[in-house]
Amino acid sequence: MSQSTSPAWHRVASSKQKEILDAIPSAWLVDEELLRGQNFMDLPRKCSSIMSEEEVHITEQRAVDILAHIRNKTWTSYQVTLAFCKRAALAHQATNCLALIMFDSALERAKELDEYMAVHNRPIGPLHGLPISVKEHIYLQGTPATSGLISWAKAASPGDALICKVFREAGAVFHVKTTNPQTLMALETHSNLFGRTTNPHNTNLTSGGSSGGESALVAMRGSPLGIGTDIGGSIRGPSGFCGGWGLKCSVARIPHSGLSGLHAGMENIIGCVGPMANSLADLRLFCKVALDAQPWDFEPSLIDLPWRNDSPETLSKKLRIGVLWHDGEVTPHPPIQRALKDTVRKLQKAGHEVVAWDPSLHASLLKWINTAYFLDGAEEYTSTLTQELDPAVPMIQWLIDSASPTRLTVEQTWELNSLRDRLRTSFSLQWREAGIDALLSPVNASVASAHDESKYWGYTAVFNATDLPGVVFPITKVLPTDAWDEDTPDILGDKDAMYRKFWDERGAEKYKDAPVNLQLVGKRLREERLLAVAEVVEGIIRGADDEEKSNRMVKRSERIELVQSQL
Amino acid sequence: MSQSTSPAWHRVASSKQKEILDAIPSAWLVDEELLRGQNFMDLPRKCSSIMSEEEVHITEQRAVDILAHIRNKTWTSYQVTLAFCKRAALAHQATNCLALIMFDSALERAKELDEYMAVHNRPIGPLHGLPISVKEHIYLQGTPATSGLISWAKAASPGDALICKVFREAGAVFHVKTTNPQTLMALETHSNLFGRTTNPHNTNLTSGGSSGGESALVAMRGSPLGIGTDIGGSIRGPSGFCGGWGLKCSVARIPHSGLSGLHAGMENIIGCVGPMANSLADLRLFCKVALDAQPWDFEPSLIDLPWRNDSPETLSKKLRIGVLWHDGEVTPHPPIQRALKDTVRKLQKAGHEVVAWDPSLHASLLKWINTAYFLDGAEEYTSTLTQELDPAVPMIQWLIDSASPTRLTVEQTWELNSLRDRLRTSFSLQWREAGIDALLSPVNASVASAHDESKYWGYTAVFNATDLPGVVFPITKVLPTDAWDEDTPDILGDKDAMYRKFWDERGAEKYKDAPVNLQLVGKRLREERLLAVAEVVEGIIRGADDEEKSNRMVKRSERIELVQSQL
Repeated sequence: MSQSTSPAWHRVASSKQKEILDAIPSAWLVDEELLRGQNFMDLPRKCSSIMSEEEVHITEQRAVDILAHIRNKTWTSYQVTLAFCKRAALAHQATNCLALIMFDSALERAKELDEYMAVHNRPIGPLHGLPISVKEHIYLQGTPATSGLISWAKAASPGDALICKVFREAGAVFHVKTTNPQTLMALETHSNLFGRTTNPHNTNLTSGGSSGGESALVAMRGSPLGIGTDIGGSIRGPSGFCGGWGLKCSVARIPHSGLSGLHAGMENIIGCVGPMANSLADLRLFCKVALDAQPWDFEPSLIDLPWRNDSPETLSKKLRIGVLWHDGEVTPHPPIQRALKDTVRKLQKAGHEVVAWDPSLHASLLKWINTAYFLDGAEEYTSTLTQELDPAVPMIQWLIDSASPTRLTVEQTWELNSLRDRLRTSFSLQWREAGIDALLSPVNASVASAHDESKYWGYTAVFNATDLPGVVFPITKVLPTDAWDEDTPDILGDKDAMYRKFWDERGAEKYKDAPVNLQLVGKRLREERLLAVAEVVEGIIRGADDEEKSNRMVKRSERIELVQSQL
Repeated sequence: MSQSTSPAWHRVASSKQKEILDAIPSAWLVDEELLRGQNFMDLPRKCSSIMSEEEVHITEQRAVDILAHIRNKTWTSYQVTLAFCKRAALAHQATNCLALIMFDSALERAKELDEYMAVHNRPIGPLHGLPISVKEHIYLQGTPATSGLISWAKAASPGDALICKVFREAGAVFHVKTTNPQTLMALETHSNLFGRTTNPHNTNLTSGGSSGGESALVAMRGSPLGIGTDIGGSIRGPSGFCGGWGLKCSVARIPHSGLSGLHAGMENIIGCVGPMANSLADLRLFCKVALDAQPWDFEPSLIDLPWRNDSPETLSKKLRIGVLWHDGEVTPHPPIQRALKDTVRKLQKAGHEVVAWDPSLHASLLKWINTAYFLDGAEEYTSTLTQELDPAVPMIQWLIDSASPTRLTVEQTWELNSLRDRLRTSFSLQWREAGIDALLSPVNASVASAHDESKYWGYTAVFNATDLPGVVFPITKVLPTDAWDEDTPDILGDKDAMYRKFWDERGAEKYKDAPVNLQLVGKRLREERLLAVAEVVEGIIRGADDEEKSNRMVKRSERIELVQSQL
C-alpha cells in the first residue's frame, strides 16, 4: 500500500511503535535468532552479553527483598534499575509489552536516590530505589496516557495519578509504562496504536488484558512490581494468563484517581488500581505503602481504612474454603479443573474444610455487569473507533457487537443500581450461610487464550459485580496429559460450546507451557484477611516437596557463599 | 365543599389523619384549652391527670440512662414504654408529629421483654426495652411507608429496614412512626396526607424536615431516640430547629437499606440514616448498636468498619477548630451569629485555636447537589404530584419550580460525578491545609423557619455533597435582644435578601423561644472522632455555670432522696 492511500492512523501507530523500539539502547537489542520460537521465559539467561548473571539474579528477587538489599547497601538502586531496564528491553522484544521507555530518567533518578542514601544513610521512603512499571493509561507526570487509542496518541498525563504520586514520594523509580488494549475493555492487549502483546510463556497465546503489558513484563521479570487496573478482570486475568500474582481490592480501597479512559465519571461500576507481582509479599507491600500515605485526604472517595496486619496466625487453624467448580456458564478447561482438584485435595489433607459453592447467582451478576459497562449503548466507543480514525480491533469489535445498542435513561440506571444491590445482598447472605473464609475459583474458563479468543470474563467480572477482593496466584502449568474428565458437565450453552471448541481444537498442545493460576476471593474490604488466607493456601500448595526443594536450594546457596568467601 | 366535589385525596388524607388521632386512648386526650398558645414544651407537666411526675421524669432521661435503669430493674420496659406512649400522644396533639401509633403492640412487646428479663435475668440485647421512634418512610414490618404521598397511603413496608431489624433484635420497642413531608424533599414537614407538623417551642414555626416528625417528638420527649434520614439536612435541619441532637454520618456507615421514596436506586448523591436524640451519648449508642451487628453482611454497600472508641482523651489537648461565619450565600440570622461568636469565645478561652473557614467552594458544592437531586428533570415528582392525585404543597411546588426541568443523559451524570470528585478533592485539600479537627458551622441560615419559609439548605447540604459527618446540638435560644450586628456583611444575593427579609419582618419576636443549634463537621468516616470533639465543645459551652447548676441539682435530688427515705 502506498503512503498516500494508507490511513492516517497507520502513521501514528508506526511512529509510536518505532519510538518505543528506538528507546532501547542498541547494545540491548537481541539477535533475531533468539527471537524465534514461542517461549521466551529463558531469553534473559540466553542474553549473557546483555545481562550479567548477577543482573539476572537481582531481577528474579521479590520487591521486598530488593528493597532490603538497597536499604542494607548490598545493592544500589542504580544497579537494580539498570538490571530491570535491560530485562524490560528483552521482554519488550519478546512480547511487545512496553508502551513507553523511560530508562534514562529512571537511571538518573536511581542515581539521585543512591546519593540520598549515601548522604542521609537512610532510605527516602519505603520504596526507596525500587523500579516500578505503570500501565499505560495511568497518569504519570510527563508521559502520554492513550488508553490504546490512536486519537489520544499524544494525550499527555496532566500529572501523576495518586498511586504514582504516593509511590514516587515513597522512592519508586518508574522505568517503563506498559501496553493496554484499545479502549482498555478487553481481556487481551491489542490496539492499532501499540500492536499486540503476547504471552512470554507461549507467544501464540495472549498475555491477557487489559493489564497485559504488565503481566508479560512482570512474568519476564522486567519489573518487580507493576501497577494495573481491573474493572472486570484486567489485573487478575493477565496475571493468571502469565503465571503471576495479582490483586484486585474492593472499590475505594486503593488510590484510583488519575486514569485516562472512556466513560470517565461512570460510577455504576467502578474499577480498581492494584498490584501485579511475583509474590504475595509484594502485593502486601503495594497496599501497605499506598495506604500508609493516607491517600483519602487527596482522593475523598477512598475509604479511610488503614492497612491491617492480618497474618495467617490471626486466622482459625481450620479454614473453611468454598470452591467454585464451575460458574454454570462456561466450564473451566481441563488444566484448570485439575488445578482445582489438586488444590482441594491438598487443602483437605492439611485439615481444612472445603465446600462446593452454588453458582446460581453468577449468571445474573454477569448479565448485570455486562449491562453496566455500556449504559450509553456503547456510543462513546463507536464514535471514537471509526474505520478512518481507529478501526476496532477484533476483540473490541466483538465487544461492541455484543453490547446492547440501547442508551439507558437515568431512571433505568437507578433500577440497575437497585438490581445490583439486591444481587449483592443475596450473594453476601449466601456467603454468610456458607460460613466460608474464602472462595477458591478459576481465574478464567481458559488458561491464556489464543489471540482473539478471550471472550468470557465471568470468573473475574462477577467479583467486580459483587465488589469482593480477589487474588490470583500460580498453581501449575498445562501438562500434555490434560484432557476433559469423565465428570465434566454437559455443555451449558453457546458460550460453553465455544470454549469447549477452543480447547478441543488442539487440546493441551495449543496451550503448551501456559501457566495455570487460581483465584481466591474474600469478603469486601477484607483484603488483608484474604491475603492471609492466600498465604496459608500457598504454603499448603507448595507443600512438603517445595519445602524440601527450597531447603536444598538454601544449602546450595550456602555452599556458594562458602566457596565465594574462600576465594 | 360537598363530599361529591371534593377531590379523592381529601378522603384519603382525612381518613389517615383520623386513624392516627383515633389510636390515642381517650384518657390521653388533652383539654382543648391547653392546646391554645404556641409553646408546648411544658404541656406534659400541665397534664398531670395523664402523666405522673415519675413518668415525666422517666421521659426526660437519656436513652443510655433509661437502658441502665431497665437493666438494673429499677424500671420496667412496660413502665418506660407507657410513659413515652403518653408523652408521644401529647406531642402529637400539640404538633401533629405522628404518622402511625403502635401503642398496643409496643406495650405488649415491652411486657414480653420484661418477662424475658425476669426469666433470664439479663437483657435480650443492648436496646432491651427502649422505645424508639421511626421516621415514616423507613420500612417497619406491618406498617405503611408512604413518604408523605397520597398515592402511597396504603403502601405497606415489605419488612423491616435493616436499621429496624438490628434495633428490633437488640430489644427496641417501636411505639410510633413520625411524619415526613410529601416526597421527603423539604426542610419542613407538610403533606396533604399528614397535614403540617409544627415546632413545639413555637407552633408558628416549622419543626423542620424531612425528619420533622422526629424532631418535634424528640424535643417533647415523646421518644428517647429516633431514626431519621438525611440527604441534604433532613436530620440536622429539624434537630437544629427543635433544639435536639442529630447526627448525619458519612454515606455507607449506618444501615440504609429499606426506605421508601422516589428516585430509588439513584446513587449520584446518597442519603443517610441516623440518630435524633437529646444527648450525645444517645447518638453514640445508636451508632454502636447499629455497627456491632456487623450490618455489612446484610447490606453489602456498607463499609465494614466497626465503631471505634474515640473519646476526648484520644484528642490533642489543644484543638484547632475552623469556623464558618457564613457560607458566602446566605448570612445566618442574628441569634446564630451570636451563638457562633459565643462559642468561638468560649473555645478560645478554654485554650483551643479557632480559624476562619474560607467558604469559596460552598456555592459550587451547593449548585452541584441541587443538580444531583433532579437528574430526571423532576419528572418523577411532577408525574406523582398532580392536582387531582396529590397537589404539591407550597414547599414542594417551590422546589419543583426551582429544579431544572432538563433530563440528564447518562454521560451528563458521569460528568456530574467527575465534577463532584473534583470539588470534594479541593474541599479535602483545603481541610488538610487548614489542619483543623472539626468545622463549626450554622445548621441553617435561620433558626426554625416560619411555615413555608425554609428555602435554603446550604449549611447542611454542602456536607452531604462532601460526604462529611455532621452533628448538631443546642447552644442557646433566640433572645429578644437578637439583632443584626454592625459587622454583618452586605447583602450577598437574592436568596440572602429573602432571608434578611424573613428576619426583618418581626425580628426576634417572630422566632420567639426557638432553639439555636450549631453544627460540627468532621472528616469523612471519622464519626467517632467528630463526636469526641463535640463532647469537648459541649463541655466547654456548658462551662463552669452549668457545672455549678448541676452540682446544685445533684444536691437537691440528694435532699429529696433523703426526705423520701425518712418517710
